[in-house]
Amino acid sequence: MTTLRNQRVTIIGGGMGGLASALVLRRLGADVTLFEHAPAFGEVGAGIQLGPNATRILREWGLLDEVIARGFRPENLVLKDAITGQVLTRQSLGDDFVERYGAPYVVIHRSDLHAILLEAAEREQVELVVDSHVERIDDVGPEAVVTLAGGAQHRSDAVLAADGLASLTRDSIVGDAPVASGYVAYRGTLPETGGHGADVVAWLGPHCHFVQYPIRRGEMLNMVAVFRSPAFLRGEEEWGGVEELDAAYTECSAEVQEAVRHLWRDRRWPMYDREPTENWGAGRVSLIGDAAHPMLQYLAQGACQAFEDADALDVFAARTPGDWPATFEALAAVRRPRTARVQRTARVWGDIWHVDGVARVLRNELLHQRDLTDYRYLDWLYGRSRDDDFGAQASGSETASREQEAAR
Amino acid sequence: MTTLRNQRVTIIGGGMGGLASALVLRRLGADVTLFEHAPAFGEVGAGIQLGPNATRILREWGLLDEVIARGFRPENLVLKDAITGQVLTRQSLGDDFVERYGAPYVVIHRSDLHAILLEAAEREQVELVVDSHVERIDDVGPEAVVTLAGGAQHRSDAVLAADGLASLTRDSIVGDAPVASGYVAYRGTLPETGGHGADVVAWLGPHCHFVQYPIRRGEMLNMVAVFRSPAFLRGEEEWGGVEELDAAYTECSAEVQEAVRHLWRDRRWPMYDREPTENWGAGRVSLIGDAAHPMLQYLAQGACQAFEDADALDVFAARTPGDWPATFEALAAVRRPRTARVQRTARVWGDIWHVDGVARVLRNELLHQRDLTDYRYLDWLYGRSRDDDFGAQASGSETASREQEAAR
Repeated sequence: MTTLRNQRVTIIGGGMGGLASALVLRRLGADVTLFEHAPAFGEVGAGIQLGPNATRILREWGLLDEVIARGFRPENLVLKDAITGQVLTRQSLGDDFVERYGAPYVVIHRSDLHAILLEAAEREQVELVVDSHVERIDDVGPEAVVTLAGGAQHRSDAVLAADGLASLTRDSIVGDAPVASGYVAYRGTLPETGGHGADVVAWLGPHCHFVQYPIRRGEMLNMVAVFRSPAFLRGEEEWGGVEELDAAYTECSAEVQEAVRHLWRDRRWPMYDREPTENWGAGRVSLIGDAAHPMLQYLAQGACQAFEDADALDVFAARTPGDWPATFEALAAVRRPRTARVQRTARVWGDIWHVDGVARVLRNELLHQRDLTDYRYLDWLYGRSRDDDFGAQASGSETASREQEAAR
Repeated sequence: MTTLRNQRVTIIGGGMGGLASALVLRRLGADVTLFEHAPAFGEVGAGIQLGPNATRILREWGLLDEVIARGFRPENLVLKDAITGQVLTRQSLGDDFVERYGAPYVVIHRSDLHAILLEAAEREQVELVVDSHVERIDDVGPEAVVTLAGGAQHRSDAVLAADGLASLTRDSIVGDAPVASGYVAYRGTLPETGGHGADVVAWLGPHCHFVQYPIRRGEMLNMVAVFRSPAFLRGEEEWGGVEELDAAYTECSAEVQEAVRHLWRDRRWPMYDREPTENWGAGRVSLIGDAAHPMLQYLAQGACQAFEDADALDVFAARTPGDWPATFEALAAVRRPRTARVQRTARVWGDIWHVDGVARVLRNELLHQRDLTDYRYLDWLYGRSRDDDFGAQASGSETASREQEAAR
């Protein structure tokens, strides 16, 4: 592809979003340099869930077969009450689901997914540079100048900041701060000995939840426990320690309490997001992925939305090749409302997962009554097609989305 | 009827439950004396709602035609969100409803309903004594002795204490105390000028609600506003004043705010109930009505359950005529679990009406999705037949009720 021949793009950050963006731009012919802060590429964490809105894109990129081969296709998403163990609702991920959304639901180890993207970027000859600390970015008109720690300067036609939740680039563009949710995640993996089955199961408890699903072709069991930190509520600096983990699930069923014992205890993930922002950058510089729209993980959409960003970038970079301000403006115009909705809905969905008292009664009743073939809560997230989003008039898709909501 | 000929029954309290009990026992042939604390019979308040579980019984007593003639048959029960005004759900009270439950839904002024019962008791020659302060009740084996203020003693074969929420009899039998809900009601009536329509409408708001419906053949509009008192939350002795009324609905729609302005401001009803009790008395003395099971009014079942009590009393007094300990034991065995469920459900239903935040989202979604012909939340309350309840083996109905719940 020669669409972006002689265009130089700098990408800051070698996570899922940075690698995916590098891949699509490189395939359009751009020369892509990716600076990663860490001394080596890699992902910390355990499993990650990929909805069909993400796997559809991975298939376009030619990566889905490998993702499935190294991951796992669960049979159902199951929500249970963490106290009683009662199944609240179940979403089959079988043929009807795949047909409706045009792609499968896949879960995979984060390291495996990251490796697949990294290998693809390497195959495409993205220039990958580790241990690179970007100190500033200057849009100087005809080009953008990235200054690295130590003083080296890197010139290019466009800069994408994919530096995640704690994005330094966002600090200078938006100047906002991450918002602590007061919830903390503990993760872990176990060899799968056959007890769990083939489902993604989430146990919903008061101010806590626990999720379990198989990864690595079903040979490994992924676990994540998320709970509200009492120390955070008390306003303490240090919060979410293992003593809080041990106390967080005492109200839950024996099954959940037993499972929580197997989590890694030496590492935790306090959970943050940010308020949606209208400002993704200007001119030749744009935020992308988590840097643009960090979200709580309750919809499992962090990487998925970064892939949607890269997919939109693919379209708009080809539509106005070399006119980066136009490309980034079109990208943000389409992606801002969508990702803001995912950010906001993830917060509400988390609230719904963690309710107690009468709200729990209502939540359980609502889920329990749900028709198992009712897709109303999924369509907006999984069902959007590239054609809908990237029509010649970006505003058209917004209208459609609003009409869809009004029709509910 | 001569079933209870020569049986002397004393009833304490001339509210709905006392009058209804007097009526059924008198019709079985008992000599009934009813002592009312107040200097005159009467009811304070405005409208009252009668579900088909109550109107079925009023029909058995031959009073339903008059109740309908002086009351109003609403067309629908409508629940709206008090902030947005959105209709959340609607229950038609038309032919399907009446056929399903075998009796209509009727609303009526409390004074009118009370007058109908009082007139019926007078027609049956119940001995009605006002200004009577019962000081103690002694079950002395062959009879019960009621001692009035001033020292007069009244001997009878049985005593029913229908002295309401603040029952002095309950103080000596159970020794518990009313439980303050922290919510207070303001009521009012207006001449109906045609704006409201024929529905019972409840607007549900955060920590408040407002109900409006026509009474007196549609010529009068009944209103009740119920809200949580901030002063109560602060632990103050005095709570629920008009300044709190004025502040309680500021978040609600203009329609609700305007309606609330027309409430009576010189009188308020702080809302109390009690925990269900297993102890309704012993031997020849029993609590009945609110004295036995005072409940929050969220299911509009206070008078309805008192009528169910009287209806059960009718059955059991005739089954073991003159054996009052057996009658009262059978009465309590059937009525305790039923009324405890209504008491508990009324609390939860009130909580559901008053939720805020994510719980409000869940509540509204659950109600909004409700199939308008789905009777699952009504059947247990309105659908029980006398045959179910009063089978020869009282425990049989309990089993059935539990199975019904388990089947949900």
